[in-house]
Amino acid sequence: MKIIVAGGDGFCGWPTALYLSNQGHEVIIVDSLVRRRWDHELHSNSLTPIATLDERVTRWQELTGKKIKTYIGDLNHYDFLREVLIQTRPEAFVHFAEQRSAPYSMIDREHAVFTQVNNVVGTLNVLYGIKEVVPNCHLIKLGTMGEYGTPNIDIEEGYLKITHNGREDILPYPKQPGSFYHLSKVHDSHNIMFACKAWGIRATDLNQGVVYGLHTEETLWDPLLVNRLDYDAVFGTVLNRFLTQAAVGQGLTVYGKGGQTRGFLNIMDTIRCIEIAAENPAEHGEFRVFNQFTEEFSVLDLAHKVQEVACAKGFDTRIIHLENPRIEKEEHYYHAAHSKLHDLGLEPHLLTNEVLTGIFCSVLEHKERLINENVLPSISWT
Amino acid sequence: MKIIVAGGDGFCGWPTALYLSNQGHEVIIVDSLVRRRWDHELHSNSLTPIATLDERVTRWQELTGKKIKTYIGDLNHYDFLREVLIQTRPEAFVHFAEQRSAPYSMIDREHAVFTQVNNVVGTLNVLYGIKEVVPNCHLIKLGTMGEYGTPNIDIEEGYLKITHNGREDILPYPKQPGSFYHLSKVHDSHNIMFACKAWGIRATDLNQGVVYGLHTEETLWDPLLVNRLDYDAVFGTVLNRFLTQAAVGQGLTVYGKGGQTRGFLNIMDTIRCIEIAAENPAEHGEFRVFNQFTEEFSVLDLAHKVQEVACAKGFDTRIIHLENPRIEKEEHYYHAAHSKLHDLGLEPHLLTNEVLTGIFCSVLEHKERLINENVLPSISWT
Repeated sequence: MKIIVAGGDGFCGWPTALYLSNQGHEVIIVDSLVRRRWDHELHSNSLTPIATLDERVTRWQELTGKKIKTYIGDLNHYDFLREVLIQTRPEAFVHFAEQRSAPYSMIDREHAVFTQVNNVVGTLNVLYGIKEVVPNCHLIKLGTMGEYGTPNIDIEEGYLKITHNGREDILPYPKQPGSFYHLSKVHDSHNIMFACKAWGIRATDLNQGVVYGLHTEETLWDPLLVNRLDYDAVFGTVLNRFLTQAAVGQGLTVYGKGGQTRGFLNIMDTIRCIEIAAENPAEHGEFRVFNQFTEEFSVLDLAHKVQEVACAKGFDTRIIHLENPRIEKEEHYYHAAHSKLHDLGLEPHLLTNEVLTGIFCSVLEHKERLINENVLPSISWT
Repeated sequence: MKIIVAGGDGFCGWPTALYLSNQGHEVIIVDSLVRRRWDHELHSNSLTPIATLDERVTRWQELTGKKIKTYIGDLNHYDFLREVLIQTRPEAFVHFAEQRSAPYSMIDREHAVFTQVNNVVGTLNVLYGIKEVVPNCHLIKLGTMGEYGTPNIDIEEGYLKITHNGREDILPYPKQPGSFYHLSKVHDSHNIMFACKAWGIRATDLNQGVVYGLHTEETLWDPLLVNRLDYDAVFGTVLNRFLTQAAVGQGLTVYGKGGQTRGFLNIMDTIRCIEIAAENPAEHGEFRVFNQFTEEFSVLDLAHKVQEVACAKGFDTRIIHLENPRIEKEEHYYHAAHSKLHDLGLEPHLLTNEVLTGIFCSVLEHKERLINENVLPSISWT
């Protein structure tokens, strides 16, 4: 299958591109490389030393004989996107190419506006591009479990059957996103749902949980293929950040009480979920929503797990409760459906101590690259 | 009370500004005058000959002694908006200043992107401006009943109590908007709800129905104060468009079967609803939603009503069913709550034959200004 991976230079996109290429698909990466510029803006870095995208795909071709074509440009530039679609005519368009950090979106007004315009207009352009150039192309869009917030009822996969005053309907699940970033994903979801209905576009929205991990089978084949690892308070997600803090002997910084519960998944499941979605496309006009995670943990659960693993390796790791920079419930009900991807064949990599230890050892290898001042939160929601 | 009316040069904003000024409030109009530029873009016009904003407020001051200060600029320019807030320090900010036409947003990709960026960024800027400059200011934001779409259950005012798998929560009412314009309002609603929760902003979202009518008490005091009347297929709303078609002897163009049912209100109720919201502000941190309409009609109901009124005036008016340019259900359940504004004192002007005849006569006065080719729909959703 011919598949575009937009955002294919990023943490999820790069291992997805390699995996799909290795599975025999014709992969095209579209990326503006902006994620690397945000590192410069924030004086931050990937804990792992990552090669340039050119070096990455060149090495991949040397090792495997498989070519990953790259187009460097921004989805916000419609003429560029349209030209890419005309030249490549993809059967699936995997859309990772958004600003994906909640704290980044909360830095100030400019970053909030940038995040929403970048994400919403990029996705509008993809929708128009598919409509105009490749109407059969299946859009596989990355959403987030954070779109749902933390309602006091079970979270379903995209839709909810509602009975009210004696009548019944199946309606889009109500959304309560908790940052301007999460809001941008909710805006995208509504826009895509409409485009499916109005134009017959086929789309799968993958409401992904928090991704942890680093390596996949393919990224381990050569140092030039290594995936990025974000540990900073802006782009680092909680479990990878805790593992990094433990590796450098810092306390694990839990925001508030740590009762915040979310869905999590290993990066090795992310890449497989994309493949499952691509191999089982949505129907024309269908806006399909899958909740893409494998297990639920609270932040404090994760801190304890990391503490245990680090302790077994001889590290004396403390847990520190910081004032929460976010506006969110620290104790709440959380139970979210996530059976649709499993039903289509996902076999989860669960979070065992062995898995944690593996990531921890990878982090240890590169711990000298950590920039200390980037770990603690500096961006407040208020 | 010191009140900003953003979009105060438009169809709803101008009579609102006059009414609030006449009620003794200190009114400040903020407007980019872009609505007049869209007339040029579309080779369209207001059926009524409207004066410039300068002429309007000058005449108002001559007649009443009341000054309406004007600031000409765009809410998308944050420095401008911030300066206005610093200079005026309003207690209420009435936000009409958005691109409000569904067909305009569906012209092409550029118009879809423009509509969403213009509306979403303008509102984000207002939220940041209130947060930074006037945190006590009450945001009164115009939403639309079209945010809800046409669910098969009763529509409530913003929120819905949901019982699911034995648990219960009150959640944002699920939204199913039917154009990129309507989507922009849904995006706004989610952004404002978040800002209320995160920053303690006080906001009222007025999900307004379709507005009909033309004159208010104040706009009748002088020809220079006359309100605009849109009859074209892009900015004209259904009832005013039917009245205009009848006045020039055209058939009334019903899209599809005409079973599309919506909430409607007279422009005289719009201005009173704004006053009610301003006089009864939301609490800090509260995101309050009122459904702002007074009666429900189907499109075909309205065509029949106009036919009857025109007939009584000696006009032989036909009803024509056109292929529907929109993607929408033409037969559906529709029942929407709208008691909150009534509970706060709204006394509706209902749609009687007398009211219809009054608008019809006003339209007749200016029928020679109608540009024929603007009446029929030229923009398709697909």
